[in-house]
Amino acid sequence: MPEVTNGRVLFKSIPEGYPVPGENIVYDTSEKIDLDNVPLNGGILLKTLEVSVDPYMRGRMRDASIESYVDAFELNESITGFGVAVIVRSESSEVKEGDYVSGMIQYQNYSIVKDLKSTNLSKFVHSEKLPLSTYIGVLGMPGKTAFMAWKEYSKSKKGETAFVSTGAGPVGSLVIQLAKMDGLKVIGSAGSADKVQFMKECGADVAFNYKEENVADVLKREGPIDIYWDNVGGETLEAALDASRLNGRFIECGMISEYNSKEGAPIRNLYQTIAKSLSIHGFIQWRLEAKHNEDFYKTIPPLVANGTIKHQEQVFHGLDKVGDVILAVQKGENTAKAVVHVADE
Amino acid sequence: MPEVTNGRVLFKSIPEGYPVPGENIVYDTSEKIDLDNVPLNGGILLKTLEVSVDPYMRGRMRDASIESYVDAFELNESITGFGVAVIVRSESSEVKEGDYVSGMIQYQNYSIVKDLKSTNLSKFVHSEKLPLSTYIGVLGMPGKTAFMAWKEYSKSKKGETAFVSTGAGPVGSLVIQLAKMDGLKVIGSAGSADKVQFMKECGADVAFNYKEENVADVLKREGPIDIYWDNVGGETLEAALDASRLNGRFIECGMISEYNSKEGAPIRNLYQTIAKSLSIHGFIQWRLEAKHNEDFYKTIPPLVANGTIKHQEQVFHGLDKVGDVILAVQKGENTAKAVVHVADE
Repeated sequence: MPEVTNGRVLFKSIPEGYPVPGENIVYDTSEKIDLDNVPLNGGILLKTLEVSVDPYMRGRMRDASIESYVDAFELNESITGFGVAVIVRSESSEVKEGDYVSGMIQYQNYSIVKDLKSTNLSKFVHSEKLPLSTYIGVLGMPGKTAFMAWKEYSKSKKGETAFVSTGAGPVGSLVIQLAKMDGLKVIGSAGSADKVQFMKECGADVAFNYKEENVADVLKREGPIDIYWDNVGGETLEAALDASRLNGRFIECGMISEYNSKEGAPIRNLYQTIAKSLSIHGFIQWRLEAKHNEDFYKTIPPLVANGTIKHQEQVFHGLDKVGDVILAVQKGENTAKAVVHVADE
Repeated sequence: MPEVTNGRVLFKSIPEGYPVPGENIVYDTSEKIDLDNVPLNGGILLKTLEVSVDPYMRGRMRDASIESYVDAFELNESITGFGVAVIVRSESSEVKEGDYVSGMIQYQNYSIVKDLKSTNLSKFVHSEKLPLSTYIGVLGMPGKTAFMAWKEYSKSKKGETAFVSTGAGPVGSLVIQLAKMDGLKVIGSAGSADKVQFMKECGADVAFNYKEENVADVLKREGPIDIYWDNVGGETLEAALDASRLNGRFIECGMISEYNSKEGAPIRNLYQTIAKSLSIHGFIQWRLEAKHNEDFYKTIPPLVANGTIKHQEQVFHGLDKVGDVILAVQKGENTAKAVVHVADE
């Protein structure tokens, strides 16, 4: 096989505010790769099939000297994130040609890794019923995020009320369904009529468009709440603090309203934590992985395969679109969990 | 016995910003009471001996239509708070003349209550070794606050680091000592040289004056921290969020920096809860009472009596001083737990 182009999604510069495709995130085709002969040195050659685009990626587009919970992207290198790949060649005993892996991968057509463990990749069995993109969404990081933190922190009791922001997203929509399974009343917010419709299909008792209805008003009418699943922070979090019952549990999954603002989105009523004996739990999914992974794979894939759990993906095509998709996700313009289909097997 | 004056500390109007003694809080001597003949209707006549002045009182000086965790003070009525009283006459089987009670009382020389339970009063045995004011401080609400929330939320482990704001206060100084008993490194902040000195006497490894040293700088040098006991909120809380280790525990006891500002003291870096998997626990002492009361009385009074636990009080004299003391406490001008000695037995 002659050399082929190894398209790469490069981090070229640090954005101020929203990331600019073609400037901060640049698709590059200058690298070539000889798939048959490139030396693996005992490692594994991967072909990228699907990659995920997620809100938290904005936080990685920073000066690497600023510490945070995830590494900064490296300037002039491919960005990394959650993806699915198939093994092209392997000199490792861990995997063989044709095996599927998911986990942290470089956003380029082909990449060579030393082994699975040091790169946070794991092999998975591809059930024929489920498309590969499912392993980016409801069976990937977003699905694990929802399941593991709900199990760990919600302390949900039948008859309670939960509020879920970004309730049509890949995480929020599963949270809504988990809360309904636990017998809760569920209020979901999202930013479009389609998303409101999807939240209703997921079983939300109250689903509203926060661009049309004021969150505080809705919570005053439909609350008080016992659990708040936060994906946005800012004013929505303030409204939830005001609308919480005594002993409310707040699960902090994301604060997208803070990510593109230098000043952050200040919270002015944190004294409600005292007034109402609230608990706030921040978390990162992979820190819960060891404790809940087995339970996740036992519980969720069968419910997805038999259609009990609903999920949605918006599939984009081609690595060259990743920059645009990143921006769309930061602005909330995607209609569902954003997946970029990179290549067929 | 002829009629005597029943001095009262009245809530006359709602302050904007700091409360103004003589305007918002007014000492009144217009009421007379005949101690021998005033009808009790089956109730109890109390003589107030000691009353407490605490930061949270500012929150009660509000429009009663605004809901909060403690009732608003009633306009033109005596304010209420934690105090110690002796029984003058009783038509109740719960107590007899000469018994001591502590709990929520009206800030006036004499008051009549229906029974102990409905007014959150409880009888206590007065150990001769300890002055009555002790039951306002380290053996009263502040001491219980420190003990019960530390037991409930700190999850302290030997070798960890705790940061305690208002560390010379009646709550904070006991928190410092509890943390040292658990084998932690303790950093304490307060607003004067005397208070810094007292924190050192309580065993703080690092004690600093936040008016002279920047909190963020000290935490950068002496941290990171595993536990933050928050009495102030605002910028100090922001600094603690930035200085926390992974899995840090934040115990929200008070946010005095928010109480006298209309806008509150905004928190701009709450995303650290996610980045570092932090837990934040707000609480109100009396909600932990049932669970920890027995343990408190078994553990703390003997350690106070034998001098192991250090504590301080600043005693003011006379109900007419309560308004001034409230303002001093809001401004942090008191040198120790503020107690007003109302009368001898």
